[in-house]
Amino acid sequence: MGDSKMKIGIIGGGSIGLLVAKYLCEMHNVTLYVRRPKQKQKLNDHGLFLSNNTTPCRVNALLTSELKEEDCVIVCVKQPEIGALVQLLSHLTKHTPIIFLQNGMAHIDLLKDLSNPVYIGIVTHGALRKSDHIVTHTGMGEIKLAVYSGDDNQLFTMIHSLGSKQFPFQVVENWEKLLAEKLVINAVINPLTAIFEVPNGDILRNIYLTKIAKELCREACTVLQLDYMVQWNNVQTVATQTKENVSSMFKDLKDHKQTENEAISGYLVKKSTDTIPYTTFVYNSMKALEAKKGINQ
Amino acid sequence: MGDSKMKIGIIGGGSIGLLVAKYLCEMHNVTLYVRRPKQKQKLNDHGLFLSNNTTPCRVNALLTSELKEEDCVIVCVKQPEIGALVQLLSHLTKHTPIIFLQNGMAHIDLLKDLSNPVYIGIVTHGALRKSDHIVTHTGMGEIKLAVYSGDDNQLFTMIHSLGSKQFPFQVVENWEKLLAEKLVINAVINPLTAIFEVPNGDILRNIYLTKIAKELCREACTVLQLDYMVQWNNVQTVATQTKENVSSMFKDLKDHKQTENEAISGYLVKKSTDTIPYTTFVYNSMKALEAKKGINQ
Repeated sequence: MGDSKMKIGIIGGGSIGLLVAKYLCEMHNVTLYVRRPKQKQKLNDHGLFLSNNTTPCRVNALLTSELKEEDCVIVCVKQPEIGALVQLLSHLTKHTPIIFLQNGMAHIDLLKDLSNPVYIGIVTHGALRKSDHIVTHTGMGEIKLAVYSGDDNQLFTMIHSLGSKQFPFQVVENWEKLLAEKLVINAVINPLTAIFEVPNGDILRNIYLTKIAKELCREACTVLQLDYMVQWNNVQTVATQTKENVSSMFKDLKDHKQTENEAISGYLVKKSTDTIPYTTFVYNSMKALEAKKGINQ
Repeated sequence: MGDSKMKIGIIGGGSIGLLVAKYLCEMHNVTLYVRRPKQKQKLNDHGLFLSNNTTPCRVNALLTSELKEEDCVIVCVKQPEIGALVQLLSHLTKHTPIIFLQNGMAHIDLLKDLSNPVYIGIVTHGALRKSDHIVTHTGMGEIKLAVYSGDDNQLFTMIHSLGSKQFPFQVVENWEKLLAEKLVINAVINPLTAIFEVPNGDILRNIYLTKIAKELCREACTVLQLDYMVQWNNVQTVATQTKENVSSMFKDLKDHKQTENEAISGYLVKKSTDTIPYTTFVYNSMKALEAKKGINQ
């Protein structure tokens, strides 16, 4: 592997999949696997664009069902799609490393069935899909990765090859803590911004939303056994850094698409042994709004 | 008093004030007291209309500050305005009966200062103000009255004179129970319909809103020491009877006007000795939405 050009398969043509493909295709041989034939064609015909840049990047687009051998596979689909995907991934050579970049924690159990080296990560970039082949990088962030199965050396070598100043990767020790901390942030910012139709910064600008946000943070920390003060500080940092951004849940609801409610608040409600009324309230609120908009649940 | 024509003063030119004035002016000499000179002039120039009826009713409109002696005064302003009004009402002759038709219970303490006979009531009619002098009767209901100070006989005599088949009045025994039961209904239906921007019937049609509604009802019953099953049944009845209606809180928020949040959910939050998370959530949500819309708080 090392510094050499790698064959990288990226699964998922959403905002994160497009963003990762765009940055990695400059140094590597990227294949982007998408669900819809129309998106495949658009990408192959026109290339992949960052919206503030006129030079497209040539990616090879295929349908997910056409998955072939790669040096490394990065899974960027949303959590509910992981179940169906694991079957397909089991056809890869057993030594091919697979990186999972999903919100929530409910999909982790599904990864046990894979004999490949598995790495789990979170994305703190802001990204917005403008069309099937155009993505906007709305907020500079990074990708943090941890070993799930597989080994530290392989992860460090991969990251050395994948990362750049423009698109940094970082290794962290504990995948559970990594996902849990991201889950707290998502469980606070995502549903509140979606229900109240506000950008992320309003969690702190509107003092009444701040009151509710603190209670949501407190409940998530209790369920995930994290320290409230540390996590509330994280939430504030992210809400400030992405203050003009619209959360994925707000956007999905606006676009009449299914949200990650089950993976985020739903996971906490199921996992909790005590009542967590604030989280249950936003969980049912998101379900109510999805039902109101006729989104398939 | 009796069956004879009475001089009735109605204070408040909102939907309920206009509706009560319209029905009582057919048999009585009604003066409608309003806050804005423009509304006074409109009413005096054009008369008062029910929107499905082309015959206006002649009412005498005055400003609230011009309050004169009446045989009976009916107060239809919203709860937050009662404080300022009590001062003015204290100028009335001590035997003039005063009827208060407000939501919530926070204003009751203010009525102690009045030496007049005071009657407290609730309105279950649906009414919508179309303009300064046009009101729509959106749902047939009734006015229930109870003695606060004053006496049963005077109340029965008044009701005999005020009521009609088209606009019935009913006497009930216990003003506290009357207001508490109405408060439960308002504490469930009003904030939920306002936050989720749905008509009243969606409380029952959307199963996720029903889940939240039940918790709000349960908390309100605990605070007000009422039986949950009886009150949830009441909530269902009202939500069904007014299923296509838009609640006053939903409408006020839409019109960028201050809502009755403090009088309804705010009263329960203040009165409760235990934590009531669902009610606190909707209370802060309404404050958040008022802040988002720049409504003066």
